Amino acid sequence: MLRGVNGLLSFYQGGKQIKETYAKAGVNINAADKAKELIRKHARSTLRSEVLSGIGFFSGLFEFKGYHQPVLVSSTDSVGTKLKIASALAKHNTIGIDIVNHCVNDILTCGAEPLFFLDYIGIGKLMPEKVEAIVRGLAQACREVGCALIGGETAEMPDIYTGEDYDLVGFIIGVVEKEKIIMGKTIVVGDTIIGLPSSGLHTNGFSLVRKLFGETPSVLNTHYPELGRTLGEELLEPHRCYYHQLKPLLPIIKGMAHITGGGLMGNVPRILPQGVVAQFHSEAWTIPSIFQLIQQRGNVDQNEMYRVFNMGIGMVIICSPDNVDHLIQVLPEAKTIGEVVKQKGKVRVVIK
Amino acid sequence: MLRGVNGLLSFYQGGKQIKETYAKAGVNINAADKAKELIRKHARSTLRSEVLSGIGFFSGLFEFKGYHQPVLVSSTDSVGTKLKIASALAKHNTIGIDIVNHCVNDILTCGAEPLFFLDYIGIGKLMPEKVEAIVRGLAQACREVGCALIGGETAEMPDIYTGEDYDLVGFIIGVVEKEKIIMGKTIVVGDTIIGLPSSGLHTNGFSLVRKLFGETPSVLNTHYPELGRTLGEELLEPHRCYYHQLKPLLPIIKGMAHITGGGLMGNVPRILPQGVVAQFHSEAWTIPSIFQLIQQRGNVDQNEMYRVFNMGIGMVIICSPDNVDHLIQVLPEAKTIGEVVKQKGKVRVVIK
Repeated sequence: MLRGVNGLLSFYQGGKQIKETYAKAGVNINAADKAKELIRKHARSTLRSEVLSGIGFFSGLFEFKGYHQPVLVSSTDSVGTKLKIASALAKHNTIGIDIVNHCVNDILTCGAEPLFFLDYIGIGKLMPEKVEAIVRGLAQACREVGCALIGGETAEMPDIYTGEDYDLVGFIIGVVEKEKIIMGKTIVVGDTIIGLPSSGLHTNGFSLVRKLFGETPSVLNTHYPELGRTLGEELLEPHRCYYHQLKPLLPIIKGMAHITGGGLMGNVPRILPQGVVAQFHSEAWTIPSIFQLIQQRGNVDQNEMYRVFNMGIGMVIICSPDNVDHLIQVLPEAKTIGEVVKQKGKVRVVIK
Repeated sequence: MLRGVNGLLSFYQGGKQIKETYAKAGVNINAADKAKELIRKHARSTLRSEVLSGIGFFSGLFEFKGYHQPVLVSSTDSVGTKLKIASALAKHNTIGIDIVNHCVNDILTCGAEPLFFLDYIGIGKLMPEKVEAIVRGLAQACREVGCALIGGETAEMPDIYTGEDYDLVGFIIGVVEKEKIIMGKTIVVGDTIIGLPSSGLHTNGFSLVRKLFGETPSVLNTHYPELGRTLGEELLEPHRCYYHQLKPLLPIIKGMAHITGGGLMGNVPRILPQGVVAQFHSEAWTIPSIFQLIQQRGNVDQNEMYRVFNMGIGMVIICSPDNVDHLIQVLPEAKTIGEVVKQKGKVRVVIK
């Protein structure tokens, strides 16, 4: 298992004089040692037989076998300023779930299954328990989809990250057989658009939410009857993963859009062929209360809401009308939310 | 080609009210658009035939073929506070070279060839020309080793990154045939340790250097006769890549250590089997002037220097004495810098 703790190795190896210099810069060797120790068991819990652990001291090694015409599918992303909510509430054990699930969903849209994951944590002050909590979340989400947490890097850089701030970046590699790549090219007018519910904001729109509500503990700990919990609990709800539900259905899915930044308006057009438009019926699903709360708080225009937030739909599937009954039967939460229609003018998404 | 600009999509899609909110948070849509446009051509210049571009809207797709028993080799790292020097000098077109070469060298130590690379830029204020300069460097280094810059993410997060600060993270995927993995297990007493010169500090020790010298433009623009250039030019010299030189020699190499944080003392033991020690002869190579300058400036103990900096050796190769003549002939810069000896006590590195 590869796990570097950057900017600390020199200190780790160092003697008195360097210790003093590094200590002045806010770097703490005991913290680095402790973090590495705490992290290890979580990462180990995710390993699969293809991981040639103990070999790759500078790298993670993954034996790749059993595919016919494999295409490697990769993605990288960060969780954005959802991090600030986690920090405000000192709750860091779910933010790792967010980034893993985000990445898993991204490669799922091509039909790919996850193989392995690497993380990067850039942090102002390395606090072992905090890093452990982050990695615990990463490992939990990795285990749930059979993805190996094969490597990572923690870089303590007090001159880049202020105080307790950090950034969390994920990198995923998955695989799909070439003939099974899902790319939306077979989508035609008359196809059905199905939506799967999100678990909340997922990882998008947090800059706006933080602007509207602020992020003090007192705001975040306020209980909202319509949410049935505090605002902070609602906002930190982990990004949902659609892998297990959708995997058996991939053969009948023509296109998938992961509804992240840009909402339905920004993401669905990415998989549509030229000449067609997605038309949604917003009354087809119930907008979760958190979005109504945000809209009221900021007096945000309805159209704008659909462009910023997922509005309760975390993943969109496009399929032939013939397969809708089967899909809805297998996915009881799924709802028909629209259809593919002929394009008129420049608009590629219509909400009715 | 996948390239997200996170935290901006919603703004990009947004209307007046959201624009105002996002604008107040310091996010600029014109900058995001311009950055994406500027980046595209650089990334395209790196693509290889295996990249199924135009397909992966949410992911990068790489067709994987022509291997017998492939092992995927992955690594992630950042460039640390070398970034602060780049920012102080407003010179961002080489920091991308640093991170690509760092990652390429890391996976090379297992014998792997690079396939593709993804980058993550977390940034306080997205300035298109700055992001373009960073990506230009990434693309240049990727092209030089035939590695596709298949994806990336730029996240503008003014609440995480202060002012012009940013972080640059690299993820690399390479491949090696299982039977050709280099892992140091065949290293025995009597083997020869060969060093290849570094181009300077590479990407390690910058926290200490910045502490000793500061990072004001006037300090960085000071010309040092012993360096033959300014301190800033010396410090920003890109991390050297050893791939092309070492690729044809992999069959006779028993072990390789990329000399990063921890120096020779920290990195060489990572590839040594139990019971053996690396013994270096420090007079076997000339320590570059920059390290002498640092040592004098900080009155740093000699042993400490070897634990923090690469001291002029960027890559260590361990081979049988029988192959030394051939290696030195093919690599004129390479020097025999030590040998593998029997371990006595706990010490695993000796510098004489």
